[in-house]
Amino acid sequence: MPTVKLVDENSSHPTVKAVFDDIKATRKVERITNFWRALANNPEQLDSVWRHMKTVMKPGKLDMLTKEIIAIAVSATNGCAYCINSHTAAAQKLGLDAEKLGELLAVVGLFNMTNRLVEGYQVEPDIFPKIG
Amino acid sequence: MPTVKLVDENSSHPTVKAVFDDIKATRKVERITNFWRALANNPEQLDSVWRHMKTVMKPGKLDMLTKEIIAIAVSATNGCAYCINSHTAAAQKLGLDAEKLGELLAVVGLFNMTNRLVEGYQVEPDIFPKIG
Amino acid sequence: MPTVKLVDENSSHPTVKAVFDDIKATRKVERITNFWRALANNPEQLDSVWRHMKTVMKPGKLDMLTKEIIAIAVSATNGCAYCINSHTAAAQKLGLDAEKLGELLAVVGLFNMTNRLVEGYQVEPDIFPKIG
Amino acid sequence: MPTVKLVDENSSHPTVKAVFDDIKATRKVERITNFWRALANNPEQLDSVWRHMKTVMKPGKLDMLTKEIIAIAVSATNGCAYCINSHTAAAQKLGLDAEKLGELLAVVGLFNMTNRLVEGYQVEPDIFPKIG
Amino acid sequence: MPTVKLVDENSSHPTVKAVFDDIKATRKVERITNFWRALANNPEQLDSVWRHMKTVMKPGKLDMLTKEIIAIAVSATNGCAYCINSHTAAAQKLGLDAEKLGELLAVVGLFNMTNRLVEGYQVEPDIFPKIG
Amino acid sequence: MPTVKLVDENSSHPTVKAVFDDIKATRKVERITNFWRALANNPEQLDSVWRHMKTVMKPGKLDMLTKEIIAIAVSATNGCAYCINSHTAAAQKLGLDAEKLGELLAVVGLFNMTNRLVEGYQVEPDIFPKIG
Repeated sequence: MPTVKLVDENSSHPTVKAVFDDIKATRKVERITNFWRALANNPEQLDSVWRHMKTVMKPGKLDMLTKEIIAIAVSATNGCAYCINSHTAAAQKLGLDAEKLGELLAVVGLFNMTNRLVEGYQVEPDIFPKIG
Repeated sequence: MPTVKLVDENSSHPTVKAVFDDIKATRKVERITNFWRALANNPEQLDSVWRHMKTVMKPGKLDMLTKEIIAIAVSATNGCAYCINSHTAAAQKLGLDAEKLGELLAVVGLFNMTNRLVEGYQVEPDIFPKIG
Repeated sequence: MPTVKLVDENSSHPTVKAVFDDIKATRKVERITNFWRALANNPEQLDSVWRHMKTVMKPGKLDMLTKEIIAIAVSATNGCAYCINSHTAAAQKLGLDAEKLGELLAVVGLFNMTNRLVEGYQVEPDIFPKIG
Repeated sequence: MPTVKLVDENSSHPTVKAVFDDIKATRKVERITNFWRALANNPEQLDSVWRHMKTVMKPGKLDMLTKEIIAIAVSATNGCAYCINSHTAAAQKLGLDAEKLGELLAVVGLFNMTNRLVEGYQVEPDIFPKIG
Repeated sequence: MPTVKLVDENSSHPTVKAVFDDIKATRKVERITNFWRALANNPEQLDSVWRHMKTVMKPGKLDMLTKEIIAIAVSATNGCAYCINSHTAAAQKLGLDAEKLGELLAVVGLFNMTNRLVEGYQVEPDIFPKIG
Repeated sequence: MPTVKLVDENSSHPTVKAVFDDIKATRKVERITNFWRALANNPEQLDSVWRHMKTVMKPGKLDMLTKEIIAIAVSATNGCAYCINSHTAAAQKLGLDAEKLGELLAVVGLFNMTNRLVEGYQVEPDIFPKIG
C-alpha cells in the first residue's frame, strides 16, 4: 500500500499536467505509472526527477536497451521489486528476451558474489590506468 | 591489507596452477590479479568460482562489453572499490571510453535514486506481462 | 508470513510482560506492534533491544521528529517495507505531512544517486576538519 | 585514485564553467570539490545533477541542517566514505556538533539493526493510515 | 509474480532434467523449488549455479548448519524475503530452533548496527595480523 | 581519518572509564579498539551499545565462533572494511583458520549471488512451515 495517495492521472495541477503530458508524449504511452503518480504529490520534485531522467535516459553513446539493462542490474542488486518489474517490462519492449535476461541476471549474480569475496578477503587493488 | 596471504602466481599446487594457467590463456594476460591469488588459498573454491565465471563471462546473446558494463553497475551499486577499479579497466580494453563511462554511471546513479523513491513511497507494482 | 509465531500481547512471561507494559506506557499506545511480538520469542533480546531503543529514541540534541526522519531515511535506503511503513506512521504523529515526506524522500533519493556516482568514479576525499 | 581525470576548476568549457560558477555563488565557496570535477567529464550530466541538487537542497518545509542530516544517514547506511566525509563537513557548518552527530549516528545504527531484525523474522506490516 | 515462467519440474530438456534429478538425489527432496525452476530458463546457468552450490554447500571444515546460518545472515542483511524463508526452512531441518534463530538474528542485527556506526564515524582500522 | 577525535583510552569520564574497564575485563584485552574510542564521544551511547553487545555476544545456544562467523558474514555483505578486519581477527583467536575462512567467504559469496538471482527473477516463495 503506497505511503501516499496516488495523484490522479488527469490532475489539473499545471506542473503535474505538463509532466504527465510530456511522459505520455516522450514514451508514447497512454498511462502514467504509479511511480510518477506518487511523486506528483510533490510537483516540483516530479518535474525535477523527470527532467533528470529525460537527460539520462535518451540514446547516446550507449543505446536504450543497454541503459535499461543497467537499470535492471541496479534494481536487482538493490532488491527493488517494483523497479525490477517495470524495467524488465521496458527492456522487453526494446528486445530483451528470456535468453538475454538470463545472461543479464547471471552476470548480476556473479558479480554480487565476487564483490563480497573481494570485500571478505580485503583484496587490495591491482594497478590500472584511468579512463579518458 | 588482505585478510589472507596472496598465493604466489607461480604456485605449484596442481589445482591452483591449472586455474592460473587457464586464466592466463583465456584472458590473454600474463599476470594473475590479487582476487584470484586470494581465492587460491582455497583451491577448490578458486576452481569453482573460475569455472562459473568462464560460463557466465563469454560472448552470448549479450556481448562482452555489455557484460562488463553490468559488472560496473553492480560494483558501483555495492560500493566495491576493487571491483569498480578492475571492471572499469576491463571495460576500457573492450571500448568503454570516458563518455560511455559517464553515461553508464549516470544511469547507475539515476536508478539508485528512483529505487529508493519507490521504496520510500511504497509504490505498488503496475501490471506487466512476463518475459518468455 | 513471519518466520516465527508472534508472542501474545498479553503474555504472562515476566520479562515480556514488563517490556510490553513499558512500551505501552512510554509510547502511550494500547497495542504492541508485530516487531516487538516477534522479538519476544527471545525475551532477553526483546529487553535489550527495547532498552537500547529507549536510550536512543528520546528527545536530546535532536528532536523526535528529526530522529523519526532519520529512521525513514535509513529504512528507505535499505528497502525495508515494514520499517518504512511503521516509521512513516510514527513521524506522521509528530507532524510529518505529505510535503515534508516529499522533501525527505527527495533528499534520500538524491544522495543514493550521488553516493553511487562517487563510488563509480572513485572520487577521492577533499580535506575537511573533524567535528568536536 | 579517481577512475577519470578531474576536470580543472578553471575549465573554459561553457557548461562546466557555468555550473562551477553557479556552485561557487550558490554555496558561497571558492573551491569546487572533487565530486563535481569528476562529473564534469560529462558536462550534460554535471548540469543535470547540479540542477536537481539545487531543486532538492534548498530550505523548504525541512531546514537545511535536517537535509544534511538525512544525507549523512543515507551515506552512512550505504558506507560511502567520501559522502560521509563531505556531508559531515557541510552539516558542521550548519551547526552539527559532536553531540548531535553522536545522536544522529546512534539513530542510524539502531534502525539498521531493527531493519534487519524485521527482515530476518519476516514481520508482517501492522495497519497504518496513509499520509496526506 | 516471477518475471519469467517457471520451468516444469518434469522438463525433458536434458540439462534441466539432469540437474533437477541431481538436486532431488543430493538433497533427498521430491520437489524442485521455484528458484531452480526460474533458473532453468537458462539451462547452462542452471547447471553452473548448481555445480557451484554443490561445491560450496557440502560439509567441510564448517558443518552444514553453520553454512545455513551464514546463508540466513547474508539473506537477512540483504533483505531477500524468498531467501530468508527458504534458508530458515533448510536450517530448521538441520536443527535450528526458535532459540537459535533468535540468537542468530540478534547477532545479525547487532553487527548491522555497528557496521554503520563504524562507517558513520569513519573509524580507522586497528592493526591485526593476517590469517594463515 | 575518523570524523571525530578518538577518546583517550585512559579517559577519566566515569561512564567511559567504567565501560572501558568492563571491555578490558570481559574480553581479557589491554587495549581499547578505535570503535569504542569513537563511540565514547557520546558516553550514553557507548554504554548502551556495549550493554547490548554483551547481551548478544556471549555463549548461548550458538557458540562464540559461530557468532563471530555471523559477524564476518554480515560485515562482508555490507562491505565494512574495519568490521571485516576486526571480526576476522576475533574469529581467528577462537579457531578460525584460513580453510574455515575460505569456506565461510565462499558461502557468503554464493548467497549474495543467489539473493540477487532470486530478486532479479522475482521468484515467489515456496510454502514452508514456521519455526517454533
